[in-house]
Amino acid sequence: MRKLLVIGIGTGNPEHVTLQAVRALNAANAIFLIDKGDAKAELLRIRREICERFIEGEPPRFVEASDPERDRSPADYGVAVDDWHAARAELYETLIETNLGEGESGAFLVWGDPSLYDSTLRIIARIRARGRLAFDCEVIPGITSVQALAAGHQIPLNGIGEPVTITTGRRLAQDLSADGATVVMLDGKVDFDGLDPDLTIQWGAYLGTADELLVSGRLGDVAELIRTTRREARVRHGWIMDIYRLSRPAT
Amino acid sequence: MRKLLVIGIGTGNPEHVTLQAVRALNAANAIFLIDKGDAKAELLRIRREICERFIEGEPPRFVEASDPERDRSPADYGVAVDDWHAARAELYETLIETNLGEGESGAFLVWGDPSLYDSTLRIIARIRARGRLAFDCEVIPGITSVQALAAGHQIPLNGIGEPVTITTGRRLAQDLSADGATVVMLDGKVDFDGLDPDLTIQWGAYLGTADELLVSGRLGDVAELIRTTRREARVRHGWIMDIYRLSRPAT
Ligand SMILES: C[S@@+](CC[C@H](N)C(=O)[O-])C[C@H]1O[C@@H](n2cnc3c(N)ncnc32)[C@H](O)[C@@H]1O
Ligand SMILES: C[S@@+](CC[C@H](N)C(=O)[O-])C[C@H]1O[C@@H](n2cnc3c(N)ncnc32)[C@H](O)[C@@H]1O
Repeated sequence: MRKLLVIGIGTGNPEHVTLQAVRALNAANAIFLIDKGDAKAELLRIRREICERFIEGEPPRFVEASDPERDRSPADYGVAVDDWHAARAELYETLIETNLGEGESGAFLVWGDPSLYDSTLRIIARIRARGRLAFDCEVIPGITSVQALAAGHQIPLNGIGEPVTITTGRRLAQDLSADGATVVMLDGKVDFDGLDPDLTIQWGAYLGTADELLVSGRLGDVAELIRTTRREARVRHGWIMDIYRLSRPAT
Repeated sequence: MRKLLVIGIGTGNPEHVTLQAVRALNAANAIFLIDKGDAKAELLRIRREICERFIEGEPPRFVEASDPERDRSPADYGVAVDDWHAARAELYETLIETNLGEGESGAFLVWGDPSLYDSTLRIIARIRARGRLAFDCEVIPGITSVQALAAGHQIPLNGIGEPVTITTGRRLAQDLSADGATVVMLDGKVDFDGLDPDLTIQWGAYLGTADELLVSGRLGDVAELIRTTRREARVRHGWIMDIYRLSRPAT
């Protein structure tokens, strides 16, 4: 039976890698490196660095591929994501079939943790549902950007006994927690439009890397600083990954 | 300047430990092991095992202490937690002052990640606010039980583009997400009272350990199985730590 290892590698600091992940990396006969295009080249570089640092002895086979094109301005968001996942399931299935012998293990390296805003597990579930290829699967958790944000600011995510909601920039207006904390990922704009200036914010970019940026304070006081810092960093690096936590002053 | 290292150690599997955590453990002159009483003895044992396995060379000093008593049935929950945290801040401050020389580092080992339903960072903020003791602090993120749950079930936490709320058993009725997923921690009862039987549940106990238990399905179909499994496991082990995710069938 083939085995897929879905390995969370943390979010920028190669030392976010767990000992379980190091063991899994060393057990893999093949490592699949999927290039997601554009700004993600840096992430591919960090993946390669992790492999070089932590794989000992006989190196595994590296299998590089590019993700299928994605419709970035679709008429129907749900349908577009579905089509894209279907195309990826086909691609990954072919990669596995052609590059992994019976009884071999292949690893997918996932940024952060495989459970959070990542589609690798969904793609694998799709391949399983197609029923053409039999395989085992193991998921190895990794440090998320949510935790890297909290660690950078040295804060608890939740108020005492209170909830935390993790959502996306797209859904923030609707998901902002009234009496708990909210963590926002995948926000392409970060304009804070319509948010209460009395909220407390902790913002972080390039977390875990040498370029880590952190800003915190009352939203009304630091919003402009964050927007400017973000704009400049994005120009300097050519890409940005950032995340922030919002909470009522009391929590 | 003294330095405090707040190290997330993952949730049961010693190999959840990151390379950053291993490095921090080895940098510590003293390691504070706080016994939280009763069922937590097992957790103290896992902390010791982690130190034994991953600390090389000259061992650090181990400083053991017991947490102050906590009022378990207080008239006012908020005040009781506040009193308890104040008592802990005093205790930790004394521990740091008496066991750590100037320029030395001391580590607090936190179950899972320090940002999630853990009070170590709040206690440290209190000590800082008291202003008697100056120190640096570094937070090292660890794998949470939320991620161990997702890894065990090989599932994404969020539906595509949807939010995830993390809350406690006490607040579940009020925090259950209407259109996203909900993860419930710290539920002493796990009776699922008043929940829609059509919800999908993924439940896990002793995650990451050799005793890991996993049950998933339609809540109405598996609720009784989970309650029974939980009750029996709790008797067998003398303690239990469990967590579950709820979602609408569509997600
Ligand atoms: C597609 S999601 C993947 C999340 C990942 N699976 C995790 O566990 O963190 C990408 C988003 O994660 C956040 N992110 C990931 N790495 C980050 C980093 N190093 N610094 C700041 N934000 C980061 C950003 O919000 C970004 O838009
Ligand atoms: C006080 S909170 C600490 C959470 C921890 N800081 C973390 O990051 O997971 C304790 C709760 O975490 C969950 N938990 C922790 N470890 C667990 C494990 N190994 N298996 C299942 N649940 C666990 C349970 O819901 C438990 O009530």
